[in-house]
Amino acid sequence: MSEREELCNRPVGVFDSGVGGLTVAREIMRQLPNERIVYFGDTARVPYGSKSRDTVTKYSRQIVRFLQTQDVKAIVVACNTASAYALDELENEVDIPIIGVVKPGARAAIEATRNGKIGVIATEATVSSGIYSRYINENDKNVTVLSKACPLFVPLVEEGLWEDPVTDEIAERYLAELIDVGIDTLILGCTHYPMIRSTIGRTMGESVTLVNPAYETARELKQLLHDSGLESDHRPGLGTELYRFFVSDAADKFQKFANSILTYGILSAKVIAIDEY
Amino acid sequence: MSEREELCNRPVGVFDSGVGGLTVAREIMRQLPNERIVYFGDTARVPYGSKSRDTVTKYSRQIVRFLQTQDVKAIVVACNTASAYALDELENEVDIPIIGVVKPGARAAIEATRNGKIGVIATEATVSSGIYSRYINENDKNVTVLSKACPLFVPLVEEGLWEDPVTDEIAERYLAELIDVGIDTLILGCTHYPMIRSTIGRTMGESVTLVNPAYETARELKQLLHDSGLESDHRPGLGTELYRFFVSDAADKFQKFANSILTYGILSAKVIAIDEY
Repeated sequence: MSEREELCNRPVGVFDSGVGGLTVAREIMRQLPNERIVYFGDTARVPYGSKSRDTVTKYSRQIVRFLQTQDVKAIVVACNTASAYALDELENEVDIPIIGVVKPGARAAIEATRNGKIGVIATEATVSSGIYSRYINENDKNVTVLSKACPLFVPLVEEGLWEDPVTDEIAERYLAELIDVGIDTLILGCTHYPMIRSTIGRTMGESVTLVNPAYETARELKQLLHDSGLESDHRPGLGTELYRFFVSDAADKFQKFANSILTYGILSAKVIAIDEY
Repeated sequence: MSEREELCNRPVGVFDSGVGGLTVAREIMRQLPNERIVYFGDTARVPYGSKSRDTVTKYSRQIVRFLQTQDVKAIVVACNTASAYALDELENEVDIPIIGVVKPGARAAIEATRNGKIGVIATEATVSSGIYSRYINENDKNVTVLSKACPLFVPLVEEGLWEDPVTDEIAERYLAELIDVGIDTLILGCTHYPMIRSTIGRTMGESVTLVNPAYETARELKQLLHDSGLESDHRPGLGTELYRFFVSDAADKFQKFANSILTYGILSAKVIAIDEY
């Protein structure tokens, strides 16, 4: 095997504060079926959405160090909060390609909007970082961005209330302002939100385009791997472990949730002591 | 000042995974006005309720080490999950008195029940630890204990929906089984739950006694300090800091929440790096 081939055969590292990033992993599995994935979910320290910049950056740095021990060829920060708070610093610290979910989502929203009014729903941390509006306005200063934190969406998703009157009620409260302002494009700025996409879509109405950064990120990863000559051009052979999952705690619970999201049944998730990295 | 006096003047250490333990601190402030308190809220790693025994024990051990650097004379584990998972081990490791919230709550429920049917509502971790039923049945094997995990109560409380139709609806779903079984006593087995005590009380009906372990724990602490001769017999003088608050992250948010719970306005909370202890 040539050195280049060996490099291309390495897995892509994907990480999130917990299970949410599996929606990103799922899109990568769909759009890049030749790529191996090493997924890390920080289930011991979830959620990131209510934590400070310093803490989220420190945690992200530990995870990147762990992923590098797994010989990954590129890293996807599959967590909006970590992308918002830590990506810029991480980019300076590692010598492999690293992308987050914010920029791909923001770019897709700029392309989608017709009336120049984009909404962003996300965790408190992502909203208060202002990253979506900053990035959107750097690219198009005529767009108005309205951000809204929706702290109950994550627990509602994790409790399995994906189709439920309570989730409808909470969605109506959170989204009312965005409807009033007349946005025509809404970014699902937290990786848990695609699971309640139908509720959000129903509440916003048909005229509003929902942007799923998970989908856009997988597209951008494909392009990035292609451009940097890191693409794997064949499906790994039998006996190669295609997808590996690591967590910092409670592997059983992770597996159960993962199996409700991924069509590919995950065999097992291994617990590692992330704070030692 | 005699050695004994110096010892009695030391503060009591109180810790929780986050803000919930403030309901316990509040009861201690009310019932033991002479006692100084050092509170630690593990806001960087909250919640504990969905984490494993090993992780919760490791975190609790770090916090105990931190509290010992603050010269505390006794420690209150003001978190049901940590009391359930870590208290037994901690008791063996420290040489000062340490109490949790589970036993005081369980004892009060045994005293309160008339029909021998006790309900416990708590986090997933506390419920799956089985600690309340084990402890209750060790003391009275004729009592039937029915436990129910209520994972959405904590986020609902933290989102401020203390009196809200959504909280009513969720409470009705969670509590239906307990009503069907005909319990006459219900332990609020998570320190956040006293904040939605009225909703829970309304849902259960007037005939059900609600047991608040925070209240019982403060009573037990009073007895314990008295019995071990560690009671402070006078209100600390002017210039002595009565209550000190430490957190592992996001001090501003903690302060805001604390001020909505405590009548005593907290001046500031200091952030410390708990994983270095």
